Amino acid sequence: MTRNELYANILKKKSFLCVGLDSDINKIPSFLNDSEDPVFEFNKAIIDATSDFAVAYKPNIAFYESGGADGWISLKKTVEYIKKNHPDIFTIADAKRGDIGNTSKLYARAFFENMDFDAVTVAPYMGEDSVTPFLEYPDKWVILLALTSNKGADDFQYHPDQDNSLYKTVLQKSQLWADKDRMMYVVGATRAETLTEIREIVPDHFLLIPGVGAQGGSLEQVADHGMNSSCGLLVNSSRGIIFADDTRDFGTVAALKSRQLQQEMQSHLITRGLI
Amino acid sequence: MTRNELYANILKKKSFLCVGLDSDINKIPSFLNDSEDPVFEFNKAIIDATSDFAVAYKPNIAFYESGGADGWISLKKTVEYIKKNHPDIFTIADAKRGDIGNTSKLYARAFFENMDFDAVTVAPYMGEDSVTPFLEYPDKWVILLALTSNKGADDFQYHPDQDNSLYKTVLQKSQLWADKDRMMYVVGATRAETLTEIREIVPDHFLLIPGVGAQGGSLEQVADHGMNSSCGLLVNSSRGIIFADDTRDFGTVAALKSRQLQQEMQSHLITRGLI
Repeated sequence: MTRNELYANILKKKSFLCVGLDSDINKIPSFLNDSEDPVFEFNKAIIDATSDFAVAYKPNIAFYESGGADGWISLKKTVEYIKKNHPDIFTIADAKRGDIGNTSKLYARAFFENMDFDAVTVAPYMGEDSVTPFLEYPDKWVILLALTSNKGADDFQYHPDQDNSLYKTVLQKSQLWADKDRMMYVVGATRAETLTEIREIVPDHFLLIPGVGAQGGSLEQVADHGMNSSCGLLVNSSRGIIFADDTRDFGTVAALKSRQLQQEMQSHLITRGLI
Repeated sequence: MTRNELYANILKKKSFLCVGLDSDINKIPSFLNDSEDPVFEFNKAIIDATSDFAVAYKPNIAFYESGGADGWISLKKTVEYIKKNHPDIFTIADAKRGDIGNTSKLYARAFFENMDFDAVTVAPYMGEDSVTPFLEYPDKWVILLALTSNKGADDFQYHPDQDNSLYKTVLQKSQLWADKDRMMYVVGATRAETLTEIREIVPDHFLLIPGVGAQGGSLEQVADHGMNSSCGLLVNSSRGIIFADDTRDFGTVAALKSRQLQQEMQSHLITRGLI
């Protein structure tokens, strides 16, 4: 999917919501356990309930991988279901992969060929040749970790200090590998105070922002400090939508929760004069 | 597996060889393609041929993941085969995972519960809470990326400079999370010149050293600069062993290649007075 197509969909839906499919088999409503593929049935229901309000879905690969081969089948079916029924929705494999070139190439094959994801999240530790194999696929995206939402982000991402920190070097150096049409960055919503500085380094890129909701980030702060003239934000919510209810009404509640976020997002898009 | 058990096996086999099972389905001998699970058949033959000379096997997860659900089945069968037939051999999931706590927990479940690996490689970018979930399993290991063998290691691992570099901070800080009985570090053989400095920071830990062979690293330099009083090295070779021959003789040639490395290793163990 191209940047223009993504932005067009944001304008159409008046939303920059990404729904995180962290579909833990131990947390999905128990009545689904009778079905042949409970995780896929759960995802299908969540997708059907939220697709009017979301512009992206982000399966978290750990939740599928922990199910072994069955988990991979659920994942593949989920991506196919989105592509078939909602081809305008951006799909992100939240995999945080990254290895030497010949190995990253195989991860790229896994997510871009065997499955038709639009983007994959990549960890930058191993540098350029661990990232560029993912860029060999036209219209596919790398979403590189910059400043993550978790507490452990403090351990190395600010090394050696705030002014000269690793995450800034990641943002700067990686722009030599691909431009805003092929690369996005992960910035945690819990780090909203740094978004102004980050926007000085990457004014035009899309940012994937996890951490709103369960992790405590504020959508308002993210929009205030992070939005650019093409929106430039995909804000993710996972648990706050998909596990908001564990009864047979879980789809209805997920629709409600995602609609609430969409409406907040709409008001931010209006405030910035984008719609 | 405990550190003592691993070291005992090194002494018994007079070897610190790890064989990398980077079993690319496009590179294995073509006559195997007729079998039901070519990758597993290939791995079985490699394991049978090399198990006298190796103390560890390291499947590179990308090569299985790129095969989708079938790849996961081949991987699981491979680990089971090693555990059943060679229970004294250390098994490493070379996965380079790492994510926020609740997600790393699921990756740990994938490799330590669903499959019975002894260790998993982890990328440190996201810090402590991305690493510690892997440490909740007794006698299982984290092998943390420190200084990798690829060119891209220069991009961030030396940030901001050699004296104050990220990889050193990773080595220092991560010692607060687990000791030498639960954590190892990846240091590329192509970085042998830095091993002396690294040994000042982590004198007693095991290091997993990829990059000997196809990537150009020297076993002699690694042994000279990296070996400690409990050996402290697992040196990996992948392509140089498993793809040394692509005919029906590939097992025999793999045995020969791994034996050559074992014999070199034996001489280094003798030189250091360990055997």
